[in-house]
Amino acid sequence: MNNRMNFSGGPGALPASVLQQTREAIAALPETGISVLGMSHRSDWFRSVLDEAEQNLRSLLNIPDNYRVLFLQGGSSLQFSMLPMNFLRGHAVGADYLVTGYWSAKAPIEAQLEGRTHVVWDGRANGFKRLPEPAEPPFTPGAAYLHYVSNETVEGLEFAHIPGRVDVPLVCDMSSNLLGGPLDVSCYAMIYAHAQKNLGPSGVTLVIMRDDFAAQAATGLPTVLDYRTHVQYHSNYNTPPVFAIYVLMLVTRWLRDDIGGLQAMAALNRLKSEQVYAALDAHPDIYLPHAEAASRSRMNVVFSLRHGVSDADFAAAARQAGIHGLEGHRSLGGWRASLYNAIALDEAQDLADWLRQFALSQAQS
Amino acid sequence: MNNRMNFSGGPGALPASVLQQTREAIAALPETGISVLGMSHRSDWFRSVLDEAEQNLRSLLNIPDNYRVLFLQGGSSLQFSMLPMNFLRGHAVGADYLVTGYWSAKAPIEAQLEGRTHVVWDGRANGFKRLPEPAEPPFTPGAAYLHYVSNETVEGLEFAHIPGRVDVPLVCDMSSNLLGGPLDVSCYAMIYAHAQKNLGPSGVTLVIMRDDFAAQAATGLPTVLDYRTHVQYHSNYNTPPVFAIYVLMLVTRWLRDDIGGLQAMAALNRLKSEQVYAALDAHPDIYLPHAEAASRSRMNVVFSLRHGVSDADFAAAARQAGIHGLEGHRSLGGWRASLYNAIALDEAQDLADWLRQFALSQAQS
Repeated sequence: MNNRMNFSGGPGALPASVLQQTREAIAALPETGISVLGMSHRSDWFRSVLDEAEQNLRSLLNIPDNYRVLFLQGGSSLQFSMLPMNFLRGHAVGADYLVTGYWSAKAPIEAQLEGRTHVVWDGRANGFKRLPEPAEPPFTPGAAYLHYVSNETVEGLEFAHIPGRVDVPLVCDMSSNLLGGPLDVSCYAMIYAHAQKNLGPSGVTLVIMRDDFAAQAATGLPTVLDYRTHVQYHSNYNTPPVFAIYVLMLVTRWLRDDIGGLQAMAALNRLKSEQVYAALDAHPDIYLPHAEAASRSRMNVVFSLRHGVSDADFAAAARQAGIHGLEGHRSLGGWRASLYNAIALDEAQDLADWLRQFALSQAQS
Repeated sequence: MNNRMNFSGGPGALPASVLQQTREAIAALPETGISVLGMSHRSDWFRSVLDEAEQNLRSLLNIPDNYRVLFLQGGSSLQFSMLPMNFLRGHAVGADYLVTGYWSAKAPIEAQLEGRTHVVWDGRANGFKRLPEPAEPPFTPGAAYLHYVSNETVEGLEFAHIPGRVDVPLVCDMSSNLLGGPLDVSCYAMIYAHAQKNLGPSGVTLVIMRDDFAAQAATGLPTVLDYRTHVQYHSNYNTPPVFAIYVLMLVTRWLRDDIGGLQAMAALNRLKSEQVYAALDAHPDIYLPHAEAASRSRMNVVFSLRHGVSDADFAAAARQAGIHGLEGHRSLGGWRASLYNAIALDEAQDLADWLRQFALSQAQS
């Protein structure tokens, strides 16, 4: 078994080859002889990093030409506010929000500061154990946009369909599953994702936005909170997080060259999560998965231990096996195995084997 | 002469010992066996990094107990908007701004979106070649705050005094000279600085704020743009830029242990800049320093070449001597040697020697 496997919910593990290149870049970039941490954001080198990161993302995700690719700061928490400042402010009908977990529940609270906010589905009533069916939420005709979160990291729920109305701009927080597999970008007005799951280290936030949606933004916004500023300056208005964007670019290269693209990545992610869910399902007397089967996430396998099984014993056994980061989110408790892109298939298999062993050890004791 | 000296205006160079520790942390942190890029922001390890960074800053800067130390994102560009959103919105008198260079001129543009904005001194009239005398600007009694920038990186101007009225809260952007020497924090209601000059890599922004000032912030702000959120959550409301904060913490250790504190740092910075200015002043037929003598910055030595001296020859000679990052800001042109903390005294001496050699070569040709 691998010595130290990191199943942290985020910031998540990064591929070993990316870490190796990053170490070398901290000493000195081969292209410049200067540490990546001392490179100017106005240098030709950094312009080429931004350009390659964008091109690799366009290629991996088949991003159409009428979409901009932006690298911002502040994570989803800032997007929760920037989005309604830009597109809800002054809108007569208001915006629709799906509340499907701990994370998406935060978004409409910020939207309410800017305009009418319709929570058209709220999973709190079912304990955030499942996602809505396609026809279930009463979507609002003429809404400014529909906002949803494609994967809930805390509860381990992932959409298998694209929700909403075709006549309402669709905005999605894909922080925890973007680049986990192919995606039809053309269905969306805007996609955003913080980096620290599948894209790179924390500190950079990816935004993919359709031109005609960007053009509808409100006026009189703070310059740095207006998406059009970052479109106009090609993500270099103020000093970007140079290092985080550089690592993100290396991750896109790894996806392209080492993994072979997002179809291959999706197949691996499916296998990884199937292995771990199968181990949990094989021992229903020990493990209780949180999500209903149809809403299960490939990225975050969330479960608790059945009554009578000791969390302390589980934690100690994991530690002894060199397994790191299984603690559940502080809001829900329990356990969570995050299987982001950088987790290798054999690591997921090792985890599944270990879950089975732990269950057997409990049955014998 | 050192092989590659980096006098970039920012992101600036970092100390070699910090880069070495950073490289090791990317492979695996000694404390956790996990790469720093895969560490959770909710881990005990990261809490200890935040705590040590704060403690080291409190110790280096003698920060009084009634001040909070926050680590945010978005740089000064976001502070230009957060500050008036929090403290100008709804204020009857408005806020005072000193416009002393390219950088500080951006701040009142954002403030105007939130309330009455008084530019009480504007250096554009003198081409940003000097800073105001203490009694020169007509400060507004009862203003919400006075905002100024302590060091203008583009023009190379640095305040030698603390401006303003004692009865008006003083807010200062110290992005390019914080930690360059000792400071009386108790004179300020709020200090902020992006990291990428003296503090660490780009992507983290330090805010030091007095409790009674924070308490006056407006209500109904977006959660992530309300300073009180970050006070309440001890800089861990949303995922912080873990890596950038870790490197900042290493830089504070270096200042404490390797340099010996900010008195020692200030003495070094004085010597460094004196050497470089002396080389320029020794050859007035070749070099034209931008700033008037009383306003000269220790951090950014800005100059141009006299008529008839070739910029292309200067650039080629610098490149050949292994000198990187001397290009002036794109808005002003010319040349700039940035002598941030990580630039060693012998590097500044080597630069001064080279400037004298270049001048002599021109005189002979």
